[in-house]
Amino acid sequence: MRNADYLEKAEGLRPVLIEEKIRIKGRDEVLQNGDEVIYDLGNHYVGHLSISFSSIGRHFDAPFYFQIQFAEIKEEFDQDVDSYDGWIARSWIQEERVHIDVLPCTYEFARRYAFRYLKIKVLSVSENYSVKIDSIDLKAVSSANDSRLTHPEFCKEDELLDKVSLRTLHNCMQEVFEDGPKRDRRLWLGDLRLQALANYETYKNNDLVKRCLYLFAGTTLEDGKLSSNIFIEPEVECDYQSMFDYALFFINVLYGYYENTGDLETLKDLEPVCVRQHEILKNCFDENDVIDLDKCDRVFIDWNFSLDKTASGQAVYIYALKDLLKIEKILKKDTKDLEEEIVRKQAAAIKMFDESKGLFVSGKERQISYASQIWMILAGVIDMNKAKEILDRLEEHKDAIKLISPYAYHHYIQALIDAGETEKAYGKMHDYWDGMIKKGCDTFWEIYDPKDPDASPYGGLAVHSFCHAWSCTPTYFLRKYFVKKQS
Amino acid sequence: MRNADYLEKAEGLRPVLIEEKIRIKGRDEVLQNGDEVIYDLGNHYVGHLSISFSSIGRHFDAPFYFQIQFAEIKEEFDQDVDSYDGWIARSWIQEERVHIDVLPCTYEFARRYAFRYLKIKVLSVSENYSVKIDSIDLKAVSSANDSRLTHPEFCKEDELLDKVSLRTLHNCMQEVFEDGPKRDRRLWLGDLRLQALANYETYKNNDLVKRCLYLFAGTTLEDGKLSSNIFIEPEVECDYQSMFDYALFFINVLYGYYENTGDLETLKDLEPVCVRQHEILKNCFDENDVIDLDKCDRVFIDWNFSLDKTASGQAVYIYALKDLLKIEKILKKDTKDLEEEIVRKQAAAIKMFDESKGLFVSGKERQISYASQIWMILAGVIDMNKAKEILDRLEEHKDAIKLISPYAYHHYIQALIDAGETEKAYGKMHDYWDGMIKKGCDTFWEIYDPKDPDASPYGGLAVHSFCHAWSCTPTYFLRKYFVKKQS
Repeated sequence: MRNADYLEKAEGLRPVLIEEKIRIKGRDEVLQNGDEVIYDLGNHYVGHLSISFSSIGRHFDAPFYFQIQFAEIKEEFDQDVDSYDGWIARSWIQEERVHIDVLPCTYEFARRYAFRYLKIKVLSVSENYSVKIDSIDLKAVSSANDSRLTHPEFCKEDELLDKVSLRTLHNCMQEVFEDGPKRDRRLWLGDLRLQALANYETYKNNDLVKRCLYLFAGTTLEDGKLSSNIFIEPEVECDYQSMFDYALFFINVLYGYYENTGDLETLKDLEPVCVRQHEILKNCFDENDVIDLDKCDRVFIDWNFSLDKTASGQAVYIYALKDLLKIEKILKKDTKDLEEEIVRKQAAAIKMFDESKGLFVSGKERQISYASQIWMILAGVIDMNKAKEILDRLEEHKDAIKLISPYAYHHYIQALIDAGETEKAYGKMHDYWDGMIKKGCDTFWEIYDPKDPDASPYGGLAVHSFCHAWSCTPTYFLRKYFVKKQS
Repeated sequence: MRNADYLEKAEGLRPVLIEEKIRIKGRDEVLQNGDEVIYDLGNHYVGHLSISFSSIGRHFDAPFYFQIQFAEIKEEFDQDVDSYDGWIARSWIQEERVHIDVLPCTYEFARRYAFRYLKIKVLSVSENYSVKIDSIDLKAVSSANDSRLTHPEFCKEDELLDKVSLRTLHNCMQEVFEDGPKRDRRLWLGDLRLQALANYETYKNNDLVKRCLYLFAGTTLEDGKLSSNIFIEPEVECDYQSMFDYALFFINVLYGYYENTGDLETLKDLEPVCVRQHEILKNCFDENDVIDLDKCDRVFIDWNFSLDKTASGQAVYIYALKDLLKIEKILKKDTKDLEEEIVRKQAAAIKMFDESKGLFVSGKERQISYASQIWMILAGVIDMNKAKEILDRLEEHKDAIKLISPYAYHHYIQALIDAGETEKAYGKMHDYWDGMIKKGCDTFWEIYDPKDPDASPYGGLAVHSFCHAWSCTPTYFLRKYFVKKQS
């Protein structure tokens, strides 16, 4: 289903990308068959590359054939790309093979890459010449406007955490909020929600949030249900996959947008999309107001395949409905049914609390997980004191299913803050994200499990995104909650 | 050394390439990871390719990564390219790997290829889509003007031989007479001489011959000595290699050009270049007027590494001087010294004839080869009857060093004709070139040894040129000498 009006509004908000030009002087190496060189650009960039090559020796008399690999983190170069056999397409790995027919030549790569490092390997030159790299030119692109940034006087550790978060957000802000500029380069609702939060505190490109809302609203699945993600090229089209939690988050993103901009017209214009999600997704519950996962599209929550999503799914629904209620009140709609439903769904949620364990349990197996507790707190199902107790107790419960994605960690930090555990939130935030910083990252990653840094839900690190929007939120937390901690 | 006047004249003669558009409809294959398809264009072409791809299935959600290989003959696909380790650069092998970020897409390859067959292998698509080839578009290019062609009423066998020869010449005629459009894509004097001969009988693009003469004259080695070959890009520059026989052939090409065009102005303009070659190369002889190979640059003659080039080198010199004498007479120069020198060099050549064997012998080892006899005949060192006897005797001499390149076979056919053995020449021509036709060629090859079809002076068939100018001359022989044999 396409809504031309919404899509036109989205198109009208397409940002002009801001370009930054970076030139790296070539080194004096003389490259022959089999030689490899690595260039380090000193930071993570997203953009278009050109390399100026020249030949030395006798006249250039046969094509120059080289391989180039781009890496966000240096460890990508250690991956055996040819043996990669994961379910994520190998085509995401940033590598090219190029023939150049005449040297000297400034070769412009047609594609956009996300990288800090590049490795060039000479596959073939003739016996009569060698190759020299004269310069590497990068046109880095982003729709994030650095001049909009404030620079709070952070303590040193916070400054670094803020900087890496900002770089992550900056490089994911392109013509849409992309999930990752290496992969999938695509607009996902779950990522958008966190990017929007970070954006309000930093680059304040609120029109980009608005554009993304209109893109989701403009192309939906058959019954008006929102897809989890949107393709922009060759034309705007939603993916076939819907996710229960992501569809609901449209409500939260719209409400957050209104809260931060006061743009009542957009709120009014897009409210029907929220109402439609509610109409569809309320059918995912049984007669006891408990979510029935068999009636739902996938509930994402985290990249943990063993996680039971009953409790967290229930909570996300309440979390979204509470923002829908706020929207309906602003628009002076009748909210009686909605309020009653929230009460019923909360009551059903409370029943998932196991008094003997002092924790929420999820599903028939009564699984205990971080995610279940976190989402029940975020949904405001329980009061602050109880939330605090739960979060303390969780740490003693060694068998609790842990979090693995930065996306899930974001919600943990938010839950700690909501529970009034601000100090602890600050510490946990540093513990987790500093783990990536200690590994030398310029941008935060799609996946980071401190206990198992090489874990991959995709079957190989080579296809991982190491600049991933959903891990950019330390800048949001720092600026919104911890800025007074400055030294 | 550069001569701006000559180079300007060459540039003024740069041809406009004639384009032919070929469209091949894609087949209905649905391509997934690892799938390979081969397209046969039905003829050998030189040009620029674009392929239109589309995706089927769910939305295109990850780059499409494919490999493409181009082949002049299908056997190239059987070569293990990755293990190729010959001295000719691997970069000549026509293969690319390409990522496409958005489908549908018409992908335009930046380079020019020479091929009949193309093989596409899908290196990676996602699980959500497959790829379809919608069409393949080729813009074939050549400076050969087909409308200039006459079509004699050949018998069927000659027609085919003529057709393949013409295609070879046609596809090597680009902005210069290239040796081969796959490899080296470059102007070589030895190839130019044969191409010019074929051109006068066929496409009659005499300005292209003139342009190539000016290119050679415009950029020479330090003392005015001609290089064996010229680079056109990034700017006109001669190669560092000079070859004794190729440098001399400039004289023959210039005289042939004058003979076919009557262009006295060009003859006058370029005569000093001929004189300079003579001045330089006469120093390659000892006090007995015998060539001293240690004083010469390489003498090419054939791709046979065991060939002794004393006799053939001596003969090529005489062959060139005889055309120089004609030029000097036309230009009314004093030719006394030149005539005397020819007599002395011929006398020295005659001494290489071994009366007991009835054949010319070459070098200290008194080597007997086809090449030595052929060149002595072409140089007119002996009379027609003796030439005939020699050529007959040669066939009985089983140990005689054979010919391996079509270039050398050309001279064998010409020697037979010069010796009045027209019938035999016709038969030998068919025997040799029909061998390639029987293997299904569209164009004649750089290397063809009927006794050892897989022989490679380069270390692998993958880098061979299968459309090579120096093997295009059957059309010259047919049209100049055998056209009356029509059925």
